[in-house]
Amino acid sequence: MRRFYVAPHEFKGERVRISGEEAHHLRRVLRLGPGDEVDVFDGAGHEYRVELRYFHGDAVWGYVLEETTVPREAPIFVSLAQGLAKGEKMELVIQKATEIGVASVIPLHTARSVPRPGSGQARREERWQRIAREAAKQCWRTVVPAVEPLCTLPELVRRFSEYQAVLFFWEEEKSRHLHEVLATLKAQGHIQRLLLIVGPEGGFSPEEAQLVAENGAVSVTLGPRILRTETAGLVAASIILYELGDLG
Amino acid sequence: MRRFYVAPHEFKGERVRISGEEAHHLRRVLRLGPGDEVDVFDGAGHEYRVELRYFHGDAVWGYVLEETTVPREAPIFVSLAQGLAKGEKMELVIQKATEIGVASVIPLHTARSVPRPGSGQARREERWQRIAREAAKQCWRTVVPAVEPLCTLPELVRRFSEYQAVLFFWEEEKSRHLHEVLATLKAQGHIQRLLLIVGPEGGFSPEEAQLVAENGAVSVTLGPRILRTETAGLVAASIILYELGDLG
Repeated sequence: MRRFYVAPHEFKGERVRISGEEAHHLRRVLRLGPGDEVDVFDGAGHEYRVELRYFHGDAVWGYVLEETTVPREAPIFVSLAQGLAKGEKMELVIQKATEIGVASVIPLHTARSVPRPGSGQARREERWQRIAREAAKQCWRTVVPAVEPLCTLPELVRRFSEYQAVLFFWEEEKSRHLHEVLATLKAQGHIQRLLLIVGPEGGFSPEEAQLVAENGAVSVTLGPRILRTETAGLVAASIILYELGDLG
Repeated sequence: MRRFYVAPHEFKGERVRISGEEAHHLRRVLRLGPGDEVDVFDGAGHEYRVELRYFHGDAVWGYVLEETTVPREAPIFVSLAQGLAKGEKMELVIQKATEIGVASVIPLHTARSVPRPGSGQARREERWQRIAREAAKQCWRTVVPAVEPLCTLPELVRRFSEYQAVLFFWEEEKSRHLHEVLATLKAQGHIQRLLLIVGPEGGFSPEEAQLVAENGAVSVTLGPRILRTETAGLVAASIILYELGDLG
């Protein structure tokens, strides 16, 4: 694919500088040269047709021929707060959430999270952001979703006011279904910002469930089958972006 | 988890024989013994509370105390025909489709499928069926979805008549959205059997797309973002089981 990500600050007027891995891929793997045309997106909502002009050292300079932005971003801002999951599950969630159209992923450290954030956490967050960038590139999104720094549930609660509604997917909730919650939200009018909270493998503690409920989160069930933590958020995001967004 | 899968033929009256891996897990990992109670499901829709009685050689005999079947199966039979995907993606699709509530997965060999079915195919199919069984066990389903033998598109087309509708998720379809297709299906009345077809990584060839369309499949888009093959089926199944089934 001849589609490249370049951060917004690398655009100067009609010139754009491609460096690092993207330049390497362009030169060494795809073997492109001066005169070749590529698609470049800035991860912040813009996409351009670019002609490659100058190759110097590790960098490539291109010239913007035209803006080619196509609307591919969901009309609703959905954040997915995902309880830290083991191994590659977190990476799976970030990749799939990007494709589905989530606007940001908030890794959540909870009482029962098994992976303890340690010294490798900064490197892990860098890796997560890179997975989001790669997924955005592949699925033709023009915006790269933010993978935020790891936060705790009390920290997340303090941010509830940024959203019009907070849905809390909880295995102990048996009667309030997503169908009725979404019907209520639709009846309230245009929803622009929504936060989804999904627990880690061991679920939330009763104290955690109480904390989010007291602060206005609505607990929801996804039906009779018990979804794994990495499945729950993706299923919920799919349905919500179908009902309130542009998926399907 | 003290939930075990035992094939229906191992039930004789009120006695049930647990053997193989499940017996090993029960004895060696969980260290259960005579008098302990466990949950046993037969993968065909029934679940029982069982008291363990006799341990002999590699097998364990239990006594059915009561049937405890809880309705966890979707009221609609959804088959997912998935273009063969590389590496672990097929396994991911089978695991997640089971959790979401798909009734059967049909691995599909198409013109552009990259993994060629070879001598290891029988072993691969055995492994896929085992992944479905494990996923059913974990998500508390009482039915284990069938993972069918690999089939070709012409073979699949001959089976279209088994379904009330066939939806064909195609990257070239730009205007017919899942929203309108599901609205039409709902208006037609109660849908009981639905087939979803998802192409492999390279998509369908024009001849393949024509073949399924000529035989009544409805091509559908999932919206502006390009979903990977292993994401498309799971997103589609989630939305369909939400709209026509019991998810959410």
